[in-house]
Amino acid sequence: MSGTAQIGVTGLAVMGRNLARNFARNGFTVAVHNRTAAKTRALVEEFGDEGTFVPAESAEEFVAALERPRRLVIMVKAGDPTDAVIEEFAPLLEEGDVIIDGGNAHFADTRRREKDLRERGIHFVGTGISGGEEGALHGPSIMPGGSAESYATLGPMLEKIAAKAPDGTPTVAHMGPDGAGHFVKMVHNGIEYADMQLIAEAYHLLRSVAGYSPAQIAETFRTWNTGRLDSYLIEITAEVLAHTDADTGKPFVDVVTDQAEQKGTGRWTVQIALDLGVPVSGIAEAVFARSLSGHADLRAASRGLPGPTPRPLSDEEASRFADQVEQALYASKIVSYTQGFHQIQAGSDAYDWNIDLGSVAAIWRAGCIIRAAFLDRIRAAYDTQRDLPSLLSDKEFASEIGSAQDDWRDVVATAAHQGVPTPGFSAALAYYDALRADRLPAALTQAQRDFFGAHTYRRVDREGSFHTLWGGDRSEVGTD
Amino acid sequence: MSGTAQIGVTGLAVMGRNLARNFARNGFTVAVHNRTAAKTRALVEEFGDEGTFVPAESAEEFVAALERPRRLVIMVKAGDPTDAVIEEFAPLLEEGDVIIDGGNAHFADTRRREKDLRERGIHFVGTGISGGEEGALHGPSIMPGGSAESYATLGPMLEKIAAKAPDGTPTVAHMGPDGAGHFVKMVHNGIEYADMQLIAEAYHLLRSVAGYSPAQIAETFRTWNTGRLDSYLIEITAEVLAHTDADTGKPFVDVVTDQAEQKGTGRWTVQIALDLGVPVSGIAEAVFARSLSGHADLRAASRGLPGPTPRPLSDEEASRFADQVEQALYASKIVSYTQGFHQIQAGSDAYDWNIDLGSVAAIWRAGCIIRAAFLDRIRAAYDTQRDLPSLLSDKEFASEIGSAQDDWRDVVATAAHQGVPTPGFSAALAYYDALRADRLPAALTQAQRDFFGAHTYRRVDREGSFHTLWGGDRSEVGTD
Repeated sequence: MSGTAQIGVTGLAVMGRNLARNFARNGFTVAVHNRTAAKTRALVEEFGDEGTFVPAESAEEFVAALERPRRLVIMVKAGDPTDAVIEEFAPLLEEGDVIIDGGNAHFADTRRREKDLRERGIHFVGTGISGGEEGALHGPSIMPGGSAESYATLGPMLEKIAAKAPDGTPTVAHMGPDGAGHFVKMVHNGIEYADMQLIAEAYHLLRSVAGYSPAQIAETFRTWNTGRLDSYLIEITAEVLAHTDADTGKPFVDVVTDQAEQKGTGRWTVQIALDLGVPVSGIAEAVFARSLSGHADLRAASRGLPGPTPRPLSDEEASRFADQVEQALYASKIVSYTQGFHQIQAGSDAYDWNIDLGSVAAIWRAGCIIRAAFLDRIRAAYDTQRDLPSLLSDKEFASEIGSAQDDWRDVVATAAHQGVPTPGFSAALAYYDALRADRLPAALTQAQRDFFGAHTYRRVDREGSFHTLWGGDRSEVGTD
Repeated sequence: MSGTAQIGVTGLAVMGRNLARNFARNGFTVAVHNRTAAKTRALVEEFGDEGTFVPAESAEEFVAALERPRRLVIMVKAGDPTDAVIEEFAPLLEEGDVIIDGGNAHFADTRRREKDLRERGIHFVGTGISGGEEGALHGPSIMPGGSAESYATLGPMLEKIAAKAPDGTPTVAHMGPDGAGHFVKMVHNGIEYADMQLIAEAYHLLRSVAGYSPAQIAETFRTWNTGRLDSYLIEITAEVLAHTDADTGKPFVDVVTDQAEQKGTGRWTVQIALDLGVPVSGIAEAVFARSLSGHADLRAASRGLPGPTPRPLSDEEASRFADQVEQALYASKIVSYTQGFHQIQAGSDAYDWNIDLGSVAAIWRAGCIIRAAFLDRIRAAYDTQRDLPSLLSDKEFASEIGSAQDDWRDVVATAAHQGVPTPGFSAALAYYDALRADRLPAALTQAQRDFFGAHTYRRVDREGSFHTLWGGDRSEVGTD
């Protein structure tokens, strides 16, 4: 027996509810289900006129409401709750049915679940969904993994509910097999951390070095948002900074406790990058900056540590400095994306996902938190140069960094002298300078490793592995 | 039946062999065993006159050779080989016997093994052993975990074979239960990565900015080694830089391929720090610098990227700059150790290990790769102030950083302007400035999170969690 609903959503917290409404508003019949049936009833009661909902109280009823092949979206917490829900529904499904996990699962869990369900004849689609509550309702960016077959049945529906890029294309594409979608979403979030950290540093510099008020900085960000930095995060930064706290009349940002929280995908991004051997220093510094901010005791104990005496800037200097900060922010942003896309490429290579980086950039152009005009240029770079070794190898981006670098270097130097922490700007610059270096001091590091641990080294002038008898006559021996 | 050997070593590759010889040279009767018996015979043949060895061909013979309670040191590869050897010997042991794992095991594996063996009545001691081959033979730094009872039977023997600090105390101490020893060893290695990276950056700056030759830099490091930077790694840096390649007559460091390898403990340190919420940016940058150096294709594709035109220094300027680099290196080193000790404290808190940080510093003073005069001052700082919130809270270290900071800032600024990557120096400075900051821009980050994800925020002026209705009238609601 099969029902009439083209899609089902179980787990009706705000993300699930909004996603269900998005499907309904786009003309799909949507079966809805929740562990506690009150939420299901509330959804239909409140939003029933937005489309066709089929409320289901039991798992059996829910599955029976779906047309074949069944498409069943799970919107519950990552981890054990996701496994529990899968095990609740999988036994009720038939061959060819599709379970879609729209939570922020770890891609390794997604790989495990996909394999397990595939062996039971069920498609499992781990999909990244970005855009928060608003995105889920009005059009998110969607990053599905899983089999090509599952995308064939699911893709057209997702294209309907996804956001639309400025050129009208929906921000959804098949990322690749099994864990590819959740992996891409994880890196998306990592880049989001880096973007937010860079913005925070720009704000901090404008406040502490240029001496701008939050309102003035809001204005600066508003201006930046009309240029190449045009993006959702720059836009909301201006909104936040322009906001006044009603209670105190103070700038809102000054009444918020300066401790940033995190939910874990940024941390995962860095941990996986370490496993893959990909340097993602910008993302790491962003994650560390959040944890550091939360160590209130440590910070309280450190407030008296000596620092430099800040030198106030004239209005003219401040304005010039603000322009430099824009250059530094933009250059550092290019580096963040370079690192993030490197990680996606490395993940794709490691797991045979064959991810199309141009397509990743394309579906991030709208709907998601890091949406930005800039992403269309990344898309173009990868679309026209499939085997670009890195984003920095693209001529346009390289040339922009070339123009920005003097200011970028000045900003990092000024921050160091004025005592403003810019871990993100500095890490990005160091990455850039390391990547373009003719020779790195890694030669010394490797030589030290050979000295104390006989770890051997290679030579620039001939093949093979060598060891110097450091404790003996310091002659060299081949070790192959 | 029990034998006469006070200790047994199985796994006679270079580390195991040297450790066995160290025990024998210190008057212990040592049972020796290896999977292939030829190695066992070779050891006794070559080094039999150094002490009393009892060679054993089979596992049974090996176990029978040991006095009760048996002390059996496993020196095999971390991971599955360690589990295999444990399973080979555990069934032959009796209650109260002690298995010691001297490999670089992940502390989580050590926790699992300790629990499993404890339930079988066997003590399991996961111990860090640092100092490489030479250390294993002449006196390593030893970081044992496990039960207090196991340390009572094992400690006096380890004290004999350990290195001796300048004040004569052996560099071994009981770190704490189960995984404490391997955790401390892991962080030791992480700090080692950071130390090596900072040295590499100092070398790079002296070479590229000061224009020094490797021989001149060797001389500089030799001088530094007579001061507060006095340490094994500074010493061998001078040795490596002074070495000339016999084949080409070039400085040795110039014929070594500039790609640094890694075996994994640095990566683990960062991954675990992320789990614990401890910012270890210096260690992370060191790990990333090694992986970046290894991406030969990416580097080849990036060599043409625009950089600044270096400005050569006069001899006098160069000499002044070298002094500044010493200050920057020392200040950054204090930060690395601050981060590392923070991680040990956090691990100790998370796993109830009750690790004594002063004792950690004490046993790193000799025998291990990061041994340094400086560690005696860290020991003193923690010994006199048990609840020091961080190393930077110690008055002496804070005051030294205070004196170093102007030069440190100049060096970071110069590196940025001259295009020399100094990820370690920069990350350390950013950490320092973030920690001492009165307000961090994390307030903006948290406000953004509330804007796009309704993640709520706290206020500086009253208790509770709040959310601003950003999409509505922007009033504030309590969310507790």
